[in-house]
Amino acid sequence: MPRYRMLVEYDGAPYVGWQRQDNGHSVQGAIEKAIFSMGGEAIALKAAGRTDSGVHAFGQVCHADLARHWKAETLMNAVNAYLAQANERIAILHAEEVPETFDARFSATKRHYLYRIINRPAPIAIEAERAWHVKKPLDHERMHAAAQQLVGYHDFNTFRSTRCQARNPRRTIDRLDVTRTGELIEIRASAQSFLHNQIRSFAGTLKLVGEGLWSVDDVREALEARDRTRCGPVAPPHGLFFMQVDYGDLSTLLRSSDDDEES
Amino acid sequence: MPRYRMLVEYDGAPYVGWQRQDNGHSVQGAIEKAIFSMGGEAIALKAAGRTDSGVHAFGQVCHADLARHWKAETLMNAVNAYLAQANERIAILHAEEVPETFDARFSATKRHYLYRIINRPAPIAIEAERAWHVKKPLDHERMHAAAQQLVGYHDFNTFRSTRCQARNPRRTIDRLDVTRTGELIEIRASAQSFLHNQIRSFAGTLKLVGEGLWSVDDVREALEARDRTRCGPVAPPHGLFFMQVDYGDLSTLLRSSDDDEES
Repeated sequence: MPRYRMLVEYDGAPYVGWQRQDNGHSVQGAIEKAIFSMGGEAIALKAAGRTDSGVHAFGQVCHADLARHWKAETLMNAVNAYLAQANERIAILHAEEVPETFDARFSATKRHYLYRIINRPAPIAIEAERAWHVKKPLDHERMHAAAQQLVGYHDFNTFRSTRCQARNPRRTIDRLDVTRTGELIEIRASAQSFLHNQIRSFAGTLKLVGEGLWSVDDVREALEARDRTRCGPVAPPHGLFFMQVDYGDLSTLLRSSDDDEES
Repeated sequence: MPRYRMLVEYDGAPYVGWQRQDNGHSVQGAIEKAIFSMGGEAIALKAAGRTDSGVHAFGQVCHADLARHWKAETLMNAVNAYLAQANERIAILHAEEVPETFDARFSATKRHYLYRIINRPAPIAIEAERAWHVKKPLDHERMHAAAQQLVGYHDFNTFRSTRCQARNPRRTIDRLDVTRTGELIEIRASAQSFLHNQIRSFAGTLKLVGEGLWSVDDVREALEARDRTRCGPVAPPHGLFFMQVDYGDLSTLLRSSDDDEES
C-alpha cells in the first residue's frame, strides 16, 4: 500500500484537537472522513504532533496508507474539495508519496512551534483567536533571558501536564527565543519532541517573568524542582501554532526513540 | 465641547462597512451605540476613511465631540467594555483629547493601506477572511514594476468605483510597493487620499500582471485611458487593511482639500 505524507494547516478554534475522539469534532476525524468520502477507504492518520483543542497549525504533518494509488496532486485537491464541502477550517498544503519506513511521528527530527502574545492595554479585535492577550507590559528581554534557563537537556517534569503520557520527562530544547515587534511578542520553540503542554507551560511561566512577578532565577529553580506545582499558569491554547516539522533524508530513515506530546 | 480622537481596530467581516446605514450593522453605528450606552450622548463620529463591507482596519482614526469631559484612558476603557459586552469585533486602541481644529477626515496628511494576497494552490484554512486567495503563481516583481506606473499624480478615473463621489479623480499616489514573503504577497499603498475602490482596483489589475495576462504597458495604457471599463476586476474586500493615518502637528492644523473615498 502506498504511503502518503501530507502537510496540513488548520484553525484550531472549532476542533477538540488533532486526535480523533468519540465525542467531539477533531482535525484527524475530519481529514479521515474526507478521505473516506473520496475513495471509500476507512484509514487511520498518524500525525507528527497531537495538538490540543484551540491550538492552530501552519505545518502539521501526517501520513496515511491508501489502498489505491493516487497522483499526489490529485489526492491533495480531492481531499481539499471534500474538506471545503464540509466547511472545515483545514487545508492540505502539500501531499507526496513517501517510503513505508517514513512515519510522521517517529521519523521527525525536529518540531517548531510559535507562541504569540499581543501585549497592550486595548482588547484584540482582529486576532482575538490567534494570540494571547496580555494587558500588563511585558519585558521581553527578561523573558528571553529566563527562557535560556530552559534551553538544553533537562528533566522537564515541572513543565508538563499531569496528563502527559511520556515515560521519560527529559527532553532537549534546542531553541526558546522571545522577541518583540511592536505589540506582538513571539516565543519560538524548537526541539526534536516536546512533552504535553510543555510550550504553553513555558509561555505561562515566562509571562510571569515579563510582568516582573518572577525572576530569571525563579524559573531555574522551578525547573530544578521537577515539580508540576512550581509551574506558572499554563498559557491558553489559542496563542500556540504548530509551525513546522523537519525530517531527515527520507532514504535513510531511522526511527527516533523520542515522541511528541506537545499540544 | 471637548473633542476626542480615537484609534480603532476592527474585523471587517461582520459589518456593512464603517459608515452608519439604516439597514445593516456598521462599525460607526456600533461605536456610537457604545458611547450612547456609556454616557447617554447621541453623537456622530467622523472617520479618516469610510471602509467598505469586509475591509479590516488596524489603524482607522475617528473623532467625536462629547458634552462631558472624560479622562482619555477612562473613555477608551469604557467604550471597549461596551463593545465587548455587545460582542463587537471592534477595539479602541488609543484615545486622546485634541483641539477643535482637528478633523479625522480633513486633517489627515497621509493614509496607509495594505492589501494581502496568499498565493498558493492550496486553500486557506487560518487566514481565509484576511487575504485574497490566488492559486495561479504570481510574479510579484512584474506586479511591482507595473505598480510604479501608478505612482505619482494622475487622473485615476480608470481605477475608481462608478459610485465614487469625489468630484476630482486626480490623486497623488506616494507609494505602491509589491513584495513577497513566501506565499504572502503584500501591496502597500500610501497617499494623502484615495478614490473609492482605488486600492482594490489596483490590486485586481496588478493580479492580472502577476499572472502574465497583462503587461506593464497595459497598466499604463489603462491609466491613460481614464476609462473605468479598462480596469481589471476589483479585488475582494477581505484582503484590504486600513493600517495607519498620519496627521501633521496638531497645533498647526490646516484643513486639507483632499478627501478619502477608499474602502
